[in-house]
Amino acid sequence: MSAIRIIERKSAGQTLEAGELQAFLGAYLEGDVPDYQMAAFLMAVWFRGLSGAELDAVLDTMIASGASLDLSHLDGPRVDKHSTGGVGDKVSLVLAPLAAELGLYVPMMSGRGLGHTGGTLDKLESIPGFRTDIALDDFVSILEGERFAMIGQTPEIAPLDRRLYDLRSVTGTVSSIPLIATSIMSKKLAEGLTGLVLDVKAGSGAFLPGIARALELARTMVTLGERAGVETVAMVTAMDRPLGRAIGNALEVAEALDCLAGGGPADLREVTLGLVAEMMVVGGLARDAGSARARAAAALDSGRPLERFARVVALQGGDIRAVHRPERLPAARVRRYVRARSSGVAAAIDPRTLGHGVVELGGGRTRLGATINRGVGFRLEVQVGEKVASGSTLGVVYAATSEDADRASEMLRRAIQVAPDVPQPQMPLMSHRVTATGVEQL
Amino acid sequence: MSAIRIIERKSAGQTLEAGELQAFLGAYLEGDVPDYQMAAFLMAVWFRGLSGAELDAVLDTMIASGASLDLSHLDGPRVDKHSTGGVGDKVSLVLAPLAAELGLYVPMMSGRGLGHTGGTLDKLESIPGFRTDIALDDFVSILEGERFAMIGQTPEIAPLDRRLYDLRSVTGTVSSIPLIATSIMSKKLAEGLTGLVLDVKAGSGAFLPGIARALELARTMVTLGERAGVETVAMVTAMDRPLGRAIGNALEVAEALDCLAGGGPADLREVTLGLVAEMMVVGGLARDAGSARARAAAALDSGRPLERFARVVALQGGDIRAVHRPERLPAARVRRYVRARSSGVAAAIDPRTLGHGVVELGGGRTRLGATINRGVGFRLEVQVGEKVASGSTLGVVYAATSEDADRASEMLRRAIQVAPDVPQPQMPLMSHRVTATGVEQL
Repeated sequence: MSAIRIIERKSAGQTLEAGELQAFLGAYLEGDVPDYQMAAFLMAVWFRGLSGAELDAVLDTMIASGASLDLSHLDGPRVDKHSTGGVGDKVSLVLAPLAAELGLYVPMMSGRGLGHTGGTLDKLESIPGFRTDIALDDFVSILEGERFAMIGQTPEIAPLDRRLYDLRSVTGTVSSIPLIATSIMSKKLAEGLTGLVLDVKAGSGAFLPGIARALELARTMVTLGERAGVETVAMVTAMDRPLGRAIGNALEVAEALDCLAGGGPADLREVTLGLVAEMMVVGGLARDAGSARARAAAALDSGRPLERFARVVALQGGDIRAVHRPERLPAARVRRYVRARSSGVAAAIDPRTLGHGVVELGGGRTRLGATINRGVGFRLEVQVGEKVASGSTLGVVYAATSEDADRASEMLRRAIQVAPDVPQPQMPLMSHRVTATGVEQL
Repeated sequence: MSAIRIIERKSAGQTLEAGELQAFLGAYLEGDVPDYQMAAFLMAVWFRGLSGAELDAVLDTMIASGASLDLSHLDGPRVDKHSTGGVGDKVSLVLAPLAAELGLYVPMMSGRGLGHTGGTLDKLESIPGFRTDIALDDFVSILEGERFAMIGQTPEIAPLDRRLYDLRSVTGTVSSIPLIATSIMSKKLAEGLTGLVLDVKAGSGAFLPGIARALELARTMVTLGERAGVETVAMVTAMDRPLGRAIGNALEVAEALDCLAGGGPADLREVTLGLVAEMMVVGGLARDAGSARARAAAALDSGRPLERFARVVALQGGDIRAVHRPERLPAARVRRYVRARSSGVAAAIDPRTLGHGVVELGGGRTRLGATINRGVGFRLEVQVGEKVASGSTLGVVYAATSEDADRASEMLRRAIQVAPDVPQPQMPLMSHRVTATGVEQL
């Protein structure tokens, strides 16, 4: 195995053999291929992509580099959901207990926020005491009892992906569809699933804003999932605006709790129900998404998913009182009301500005490992399409200091475009369903 | 300066500011940008190239990273020649003393062989005692007295290029025209020259075999040289066959000595005279290449360049007896005569196979720093277009062991194609002259 030859062949556009890729990636994990050679290779992949057979080889090597869960003893379908990341996306917190309530097992392993997007682990850890680093045995026993549990990726899962992910994040090679697809799927396919629903974000706040690239990512991941024998469907959902009204960790947990109680913003409820319905179909609990959605809506309104969520919070060490009284969640000291300077309609709300705003407020991170303030963020008082009266509140900034609040207020004001009318149609909340058989526009 | 942002902008095809490039490259030299980020950047440059302004910025930063010679006290034009590397290319050994004899100062800093191509330093060091690592002061005083001297690149010259060159060689990013051009020119423009002649090889044995890419490299380097105020001309010369009959360090020195005595193979003499003529024009010693060539040919036949070469050999510590009696040069013990199995014409001789053959024999290196055997190589008894009788000698292998000789004999036989006729026209020995005003086909 010549690392230089492999890099040269990839940059020249040749297709590598599975054995070559396996040897190259294996040598990297062993420390025999240095970071600089892998960095050159990743950049060559950024330009050239990976063929179907190359994708399979990379994915297989990533999964085989670590452990996989065996959950075959569970007496029902095991279905997870993964989102490519957005602003205000607290869907997992509602979806997991709801899907469990409906009969699915949801062994959810999530990530942390990075850059302008948040992460489920950071949100969960807003709940005092909640532990996302529990042992795999405990994870499985909570799963057995409550049909869902939520932890972080353990070091045993796909260590090769972890190494490559860290290297990509510092070499400008994050935005590569084959690298994103194999990274996500290596972790999800190690969860011992029977089915998987992928939420691929599109729009200005997504990692891949364009719909064409979002669809390509969706297709790539669905192909990889189906090849591994896991029934996989990808839904393209809107991230040209924040999802819901809350942005920032504890604020998002509070909104998720509203939604679990049958309330919350309509868009959050819609996306959650849509994704849960796909999970039910993939898991064999429903024939079609329409009937599944109706059952999911009824379950959500029953209040039982909230009770289930509270039980899992307790099992994972969290303070159950924060579930029933969200004012116990951490909240930043300084609140700033940002008021409209003109009347009209909220024509557009830029999710990326608000995502970066949370980072500026100390509630997100630009590098892994940084500590964050979970009480900061934004609460939008308007969503896209809603009327705005001059002087009315556009949103509330939660900040640690008055200076932070000043800066974030400006960002909030810049993010919300007030105009006489909504100028162009927004993206549909859920625009495409991608399955092994093709792409369906919704 | 964000390294990640710079990598991302380059891979996205954006043009970087001079200040950004300077800061990024400077931080790399300081150790603040790690190899893996530079590797990703180099691969992005491999795909995207560099704009004119980016080339200037990279070149300036490379030159400024080290020392430059100041030779302005010399009372004549200072002109060097650089070749992009070929098989059997011993031109420098003849050209430098000849150009000095004609009145030019030639402060030649050369490199070592790598891969299938040889290097002038390795050839010179075949002369017992010859030192290519003499102090810069000694270099300058030999130059003052004899108008030429030949040493290796000193660590003071363009250390940034040295770092980047080493990294490129292990990350598959060698074959990038802007990276090759800035690497060569950063070293040549630090020599304090008034003029520069570039020998850009094209054909199967060249680093860039295709004529279009060779011309692009030539144009890029000429532009960089002229911008630095150094009159620069590039000649595209043939490397679809070896140059001359000798391939391997000591064998090539012996052939160069023949040429310095007015003999040697016609192609070697032709290319040397052609390049020296360009040096004379660039240095202002002749109005046109035709008259310059005639003067150069007369000088070569006078025997004085050989005497000058011998004096410099002595000044650089070499055994002058080896100059007058080449049988004192190192020679491998095992000689193997490879005979033709059929009659016809030597229709093609593949330089790359023979270059790799020298490496196999131990006379070249695949990584910098490896020690080599200077007595091994090939001596061709036929050149392209010459008649071959069945059973006649095609060439001689010089090897350290009988096993090496067996392998190399097979390579020699494979490299020489004997056919009823020369099937296609060979490349002209010198095909193009590239100057600031354009490309002239010769």
